[in-house]
Amino acid sequence: MSDLKSRFIEVYGVLKQELLNDPAFEFDHDSRQWVDRMLDYNVPGGKLNRGLSVVDSYRLLKEGKELTDDEFFLSSALGWCIEWLQAYFLVLDDIMDGSHTRRGQPCWFRVPKVGMIAANDGVLLRNHISRILKNHFRDKPYYVDLLDLFNEVEFQTASGQMIDLITTIEGEKDLSKYSLPLHRRIVQYKTAYYSFYLPVACALLMAGENLDKHVEVKDILVQMGIYFQVQDDFLDCFGSPEVIGKVGTDIEDYKCSWLVVKALELCNEEQKKLVHENYGKVDPACVAKVKELYKTLDLEGAFVEYEKESYEKLTKSIEAHPTKEVQAVLKSFLAKIYKRQNTNAETQEQTSPGTPKMKINTKNPQVGDTSLADIKRESSFSPRSPKGLAKSSSARCLCSPTTHAGSFRCRHHRSLGPGGMSRGGSVGSNLSLLGTKTAPIGGSKMNTCDSSCFE
Amino acid sequence: MSDLKSRFIEVYGVLKQELLNDPAFEFDHDSRQWVDRMLDYNVPGGKLNRGLSVVDSYRLLKEGKELTDDEFFLSSALGWCIEWLQAYFLVLDDIMDGSHTRRGQPCWFRVPKVGMIAANDGVLLRNHISRILKNHFRDKPYYVDLLDLFNEVEFQTASGQMIDLITTIEGEKDLSKYSLPLHRRIVQYKTAYYSFYLPVACALLMAGENLDKHVEVKDILVQMGIYFQVQDDFLDCFGSPEVIGKVGTDIEDYKCSWLVVKALELCNEEQKKLVHENYGKVDPACVAKVKELYKTLDLEGAFVEYEKESYEKLTKSIEAHPTKEVQAVLKSFLAKIYKRQNTNAETQEQTSPGTPKMKINTKNPQVGDTSLADIKRESSFSPRSPKGLAKSSSARCLCSPTTHAGSFRCRHHRSLGPGGMSRGGSVGSNLSLLGTKTAPIGGSKMNTCDSSCFE
Repeated sequence: MSDLKSRFIEVYGVLKQELLNDPAFEFDHDSRQWVDRMLDYNVPGGKLNRGLSVVDSYRLLKEGKELTDDEFFLSSALGWCIEWLQAYFLVLDDIMDGSHTRRGQPCWFRVPKVGMIAANDGVLLRNHISRILKNHFRDKPYYVDLLDLFNEVEFQTASGQMIDLITTIEGEKDLSKYSLPLHRRIVQYKTAYYSFYLPVACALLMAGENLDKHVEVKDILVQMGIYFQVQDDFLDCFGSPEVIGKVGTDIEDYKCSWLVVKALELCNEEQKKLVHENYGKVDPACVAKVKELYKTLDLEGAFVEYEKESYEKLTKSIEAHPTKEVQAVLKSFLAKIYKRQNTNAETQEQTSPGTPKMKINTKNPQVGDTSLADIKRESSFSPRSPKGLAKSSSARCLCSPTTHAGSFRCRHHRSLGPGGMSRGGSVGSNLSLLGTKTAPIGGSKMNTCDSSCFE
Repeated sequence: MSDLKSRFIEVYGVLKQELLNDPAFEFDHDSRQWVDRMLDYNVPGGKLNRGLSVVDSYRLLKEGKELTDDEFFLSSALGWCIEWLQAYFLVLDDIMDGSHTRRGQPCWFRVPKVGMIAANDGVLLRNHISRILKNHFRDKPYYVDLLDLFNEVEFQTASGQMIDLITTIEGEKDLSKYSLPLHRRIVQYKTAYYSFYLPVACALLMAGENLDKHVEVKDILVQMGIYFQVQDDFLDCFGSPEVIGKVGTDIEDYKCSWLVVKALELCNEEQKKLVHENYGKVDPACVAKVKELYKTLDLEGAFVEYEKESYEKLTKSIEAHPTKEVQAVLKSFLAKIYKRQNTNAETQEQTSPGTPKMKINTKNPQVGDTSLADIKRESSFSPRSPKGLAKSSSARCLCSPTTHAGSFRCRHHRSLGPGGMSRGGSVGSNLSLLGTKTAPIGGSKMNTCDSSCFE
């Protein structure tokens, strides 16, 4: 793991301890333990790219200068606020979707004895963001802007989620509602604001910028977010499962995917009938018919065209920006997502902004899509990228098995068998117990890393 | 309805229209209609006492002077933010508790086609508070304090909800956890902060006060909130159903009620065994045994003692406060709740602060507990209390059937039969449709006012 990432994860431990000792509430043992486990289960298990990109972006805004300890901590804290926001959305989304697994373990609400308490835990996760911001930013001149920013982005995300949900109400499946403008609105509001705009906006505020003067930055990042989701939709059907890390099920799930709205736009009446008859069915024959139509309509070609146009437009917009530092931030985001082959490109470490790695086509089916990230990590000349040998799958985890109180373990280490680190009892945090024995709040059948690790 | 209440309700219409046209999101017809209905269904159907008390408190802080239109609007907007907060909690609580009805109609998540989308609607309700605050208070010097206040109170409420939930996890029913300190913590965090402290804190901020300098006001209001809940727990068992407006089920529901914790404190080993064997069972014989024990232990006497002590302590604390206006606010709250006979005393209109109506014992089983409010309204010499004849049950509603866009209808008017106002089509808002025909999101079988109207 990079030094950046391990330092970032240390900040999680500090923030968690503060929350577990928040003087605004009288914790007792049971409630403290509940929140402790809830946080470890839901917050740090993702790829952390949204969070890490706050630190990256802030450094680029500072002309790439090394951050002071204070700057590193504060930008990491903002990064963690985005990870907390993500955890909050995922906990509630999983309840709403009735999902089963998330990040390779059961959804939080499916953990024994959690159930619908998960909804309140989601609320707590959102509230923790306010607590973190108050603890560390109350005296900053940009404090109120941070509150406004998180509030507005949360509102936009929930609104995007709403249109997604009401479009796909069970029993009202109606393909005639699916259109490119609807797809764009769902994607823009549900994903782009919080995943692309929010990290950069946090960094801009920390750098003393006024967000009202950066409307074009917001627009560019939102466009990038939309482009990212279109890619995701495309890869769900056309990516190799070994590379994207999962078997796509958008067709079965009746998703308002870019592919289906594009297909509906291009097809004739007969083909439209085929879509209506076969979309949203789990029968593999139906899925195959839809995929066949996608090929007939040359959606691969349409996507390549879309990708090319998007890239050119985004590059042009970025280069029109008057500030070199902001350009660097935007280019670094674009470099991370352009022509990615997997659904997990967010995991790639920051590359030098001057040298976006376009058209990388590296595949390594043996180790899934993480390999691309590893390869880029190893080949990067960024000063914070550690040089070293290719890592084994379990070593490529995010956990930081130190003895400090906030130390946490990823799925890989939590599920180690007898003799594994987590059974040795060497870790201060009781989180290691989660995967190795049946902890009071459950969790006996989890933590085997599979392809659904990828978010 | 009082002039205050009808003007307050007009503000709801204005705020709703702003939210339905929020430029931070691109609404279309379906999404606007969804939010419109979701708001009308969940926000204004309660007794509005928390919201109204912001306006009342602010006027008392202004030495009872008539408010300007702007002051009325702003204090009402803050009041509505508390009503929105309440709606948010109730929508999510009902999901978590698997409840069936709320305010005399099916819980929102039970409405056809809503289901788990209700969780996201809960999130939207919370987000609306931030939008309202930003729309109307962004330029006020106390804006950041308002944000901090709502954030902290929400955090405390969710934390109180957490300890309530984890204490009563299904399959882990354990009476040994029930104690007075736990009861106090649940009540204080889950109810007192948002129901008692928050309205006054909003008024204080509007009046230019620094909340850090009003710690004792917070303490008094929190104590009042605890006292209020203990009363509620007492009335659940000892109040007459005709007066309290519902049949209490705390014993069947295994509630951490003040009565059971007091009983466990007072009882001997044999009696404790009886509680353990009979508490939380729906069998009427079990319930009767518990009630019998409560009588044996003279919990009525214990409550009278508690009430007397609380009242004296609160009065003493209030009188020690240096400011007459703040004293007036606190006394007005105390007057509303002291020695109430029903679970709905919050409905009582503000009485003049100088003449708290203690020991009122008026009952009128024919019209339920609203009668007390009506009697007080009619007998009050407050200038804003309208004089008039006693109103019929349906006329005592909260709805304001004007033709302005935001006008809404209460359950009574929504469910009027042929020839009723809501069928006449005279109201601008389409909310009137909710109860009279099967609206797209359901709602065909609702709106008959029964005793569960009382919250």
